[in-house]
Amino acid sequence: MMKLSRFLNSNRNAVGKPTDVRDGSALHALTFQAGISTGGKSSIQDRVFAPYSVFKGKAALSVEPVLPTFSKFGSGNLRVDRRGSMMLTFLPAIGERKYDYEKRQKFALSATEVGSLISTGPKDSCEFFHDPSMLSSNAGQVRKNLSIKPHADGSGYFVSLSVVNNILKTTERFTVPVTTAEFTVLKTACSFALPHIMGWDRLTTPLPGTLASKLSKVDPQMPDLEWDK
Amino acid sequence: MMKLSRFLNSNRNAVGKPTDVRDGSALHALTFQAGISTGGKSSIQDRVFAPYSVFKGKAALSVEPVLPTFSKFGSGNLRVDRRGSMMLTFLPAIGERKYDYEKRQKFALSATEVGSLISTGPKDSCEFFHDPSMLSSNAGQVRKNLSIKPHADGSGYFVSLSVVNNILKTTERFTVPVTTAEFTVLKTACSFALPHIMGWDRLTTPLPGTLASKLSKVDPQMPDLEWDK
Amino acid sequence: MMKLSRFLNSNRNAVGKPTDVRDGSALHALTFQAGISTGGKSSIQDRVFAPYSVFKGKAALSVEPVLPTFSKFGSGNLRVDRRGSMMLTFLPAIGERKYDYEKRQKFALSATEVGSLISTGPKDSCEFFHDPSMLSSNAGQVRKNLSIKPHADGSGYFVSLSVVNNILKTTERFTVPVTTAEFTVLKTACSFALPHIMGWDRLTTPLPGTLASKLSKVDPQMPDLEWDK
Amino acid sequence: MMKLSRFLNSNRNAVGKPTDVRDGSALHALTFQAGISTGGKSSIQDRVFAPYSVFKGKAALSVEPVLPTFSKFGSGNLRVDRRGSMMLTFLPAIGERKYDYEKRQKFALSATEVGSLISTGPKDSCEFFHDPSMLSSNAGQVRKNLSIKPHADGSGYFVSLSVVNNILKTTERFTVPVTTAEFTVLKTACSFALPHIMGWDRLTTPLPGTLASKLSKVDPQMPDLEWDK
Repeated sequence: MMKLSRFLNSNRNAVGKPTDVRDGSALHALTFQAGISTGGKSSIQDRVFAPYSVFKGKAALSVEPVLPTFSKFGSGNLRVDRRGSMMLTFLPAIGERKYDYEKRQKFALSATEVGSLISTGPKDSCEFFHDPSMLSSNAGQVRKNLSIKPHADGSGYFVSLSVVNNILKTTERFTVPVTTAEFTVLKTACSFALPHIMGWDRLTTPLPGTLASKLSKVDPQMPDLEWDK
Repeated sequence: MMKLSRFLNSNRNAVGKPTDVRDGSALHALTFQAGISTGGKSSIQDRVFAPYSVFKGKAALSVEPVLPTFSKFGSGNLRVDRRGSMMLTFLPAIGERKYDYEKRQKFALSATEVGSLISTGPKDSCEFFHDPSMLSSNAGQVRKNLSIKPHADGSGYFVSLSVVNNILKTTERFTVPVTTAEFTVLKTACSFALPHIMGWDRLTTPLPGTLASKLSKVDPQMPDLEWDK
Repeated sequence: MMKLSRFLNSNRNAVGKPTDVRDGSALHALTFQAGISTGGKSSIQDRVFAPYSVFKGKAALSVEPVLPTFSKFGSGNLRVDRRGSMMLTFLPAIGERKYDYEKRQKFALSATEVGSLISTGPKDSCEFFHDPSMLSSNAGQVRKNLSIKPHADGSGYFVSLSVVNNILKTTERFTVPVTTAEFTVLKTACSFALPHIMGWDRLTTPLPGTLASKLSKVDPQMPDLEWDK
Repeated sequence: MMKLSRFLNSNRNAVGKPTDVRDGSALHALTFQAGISTGGKSSIQDRVFAPYSVFKGKAALSVEPVLPTFSKFGSGNLRVDRRGSMMLTFLPAIGERKYDYEKRQKFALSATEVGSLISTGPKDSCEFFHDPSMLSSNAGQVRKNLSIKPHADGSGYFVSLSVVNNILKTTERFTVPVTTAEFTVLKTACSFALPHIMGWDRLTTPLPGTLASKLSKVDPQMPDLEWDK
């Protein structure tokens, strides 16, 4: 708690650009509760928890890449099975520097939605709609709307998530003010993560002398075979 | 199919920036057919299929890096054997959300052509010509022309491929509208992939105490040896 | 010493943009003293010293990423234990090309502060305050202030650190003029380092057929599970 | 040779932006001769040759990163021994698509000089001077001058190297016109390579439970220890 307080304090002292308020112990709580909330199912080997979190007065925003999963087909080929995404998790504040993880809401940005975020300029805004039960009988019953709107003075953005649930008759809204510095971290980190959530970091060069490299000489995807048809 | 529908639907709902319409099952079909279409030749170990695909009304565009291959020479040196590229695959639509993989056409962007794509601004356009049978008796018989032209309102680009085959007396043309968000994904992913298709990700630092590091002290390419002549 | 002299010399010859004045032997001294100054505690296996250093007339600035540490929890999960940072080390000059490592002062930029640095334009300035003893009885006794201010002619920045210690009644101030080229190196290297100090380079894709990938099908963080609530 | 011809041909066809003229066989010759020209000394294990080459009418420019070497000190620590660089190699043309490797001249860009190149805008130019025998009795006898000047129409740059040798009474000058696309490849690839020539790609995170991670708790470079003095 000391650290967070210290950072919030230095935050007040900061000139123009607030400093990071992420806190080791908060991360601990966050990820520990995540472990619990899944009935132990999340205990995956080498699972790494390294969210980038922005803690503000009324809500916190935590961002973390979710990598794709692959499945095998043919003789040892891998195919993207479940696409990756950037997972945004919003938590409401329930006191000074306390956030209710049980009341969290998530929004998963696809690769192209990440492209929108990366290409958002100082004056731009963007908005996405997701419908969990689309095409089912419950279509339109639950609607999630993520919007990113610039501050009037260009000092950052408001990142808002609203979740309207017509079944439970509930409406939840989270708004987290994000500074230019924090948004730059998001853009830079998302640019880094994008090829990873696309699975491009798994592309490997065949080593000389291996079967793979021999076969690759007749690889139909090799450039020269562009000429085949 | 559900997922794609859902995304297309959310696509209609999207404000300003469409969301990703890539679909796991479509990827499946795409790569599975790819596996078939090569008579099994493509069954390379650890071959990864992770194309970034844009599905639109009249055609789909699928982009994937093709890494270089290396060959050995001297005592354990590696040299780029076949240069890498960014492979663009166009597929014509043959129904709602159905694309004919057999009628695909490919265009392989070289490193420098990728440089053109990356440096293409919101108002810029670029165009490339490839001739598969150049310098042969069939020179000019088959011509491929890829063009990237910006939308009038700056909301994205038209990516078009035309293939004129004077032998078969055929002309094929594919046009895929690409949003700013989708083009940002292409630029970001291509910037990530560029050093890989150039083979620069394979450059390795000699470890201390190894023969390599000892020899590297007299490596003719080391900076100080710039002074040799 | 020859090299440094040579570079300083070529520096004088340079037109518009000075060249790098980093020096192998200076690095040697710097890191060797670092090894000593910690009573051997810093002798960590595979510890790599590769600071980017800018040597100027009155002071030197050395920048190096400090990676996060992880701790285990649950069954094999990893959690960021100590967050990473970009460590700036200032050294006062005590003669021509001589710097006093014992009088060094450090300033650790958090991920968000790195975001500020990366988003600093040619005309922008930014400033950070740290208080080591915040919330303790000594709060406000020692104040560190890092400022980055652009040159009037846009040819670079002044990077200054002031340390006011009311207990020791001391005030130290370091100012290092940084050229646009040197600042570009800092921005580019910090953009590269940012995901690493965030721990995102440790995120791994579950391999097909492993327990991890099976469990990941029910991973609460997977995109589709965005829809769970 | 076919490929190169083909590319040169498509080059003539290109609209606005020329395509890559790099050629597998040319690379072969280039690297093979490199192997020879060093009396076999360059036969380092896992040495990879993957230059990015621009072949033009009067000269060719080949660019390749040279990674740093490390030496051990203390108990298993690594220190940058020889700094990395971007090595530019110029070759004069001695016929159509023929270049004289024996008459090559090299220029090694330091990290900061790479920073200059990366920050060079469409209208900017930059210039560097190196003196191999600086501070020796031969100081000023051999002077190397690399300049990058923009085309008047902003379509690219002229990259020129002049080498004046007052001892041999020789003056050599190479000028290679580089298109915007080719320069974008250089900037993108140099941005990728920069952290590698700085040795930052070798920084590693201590694994939990290892001696390293235990020691890192008292690592003098850890952020919190910024507060120590």
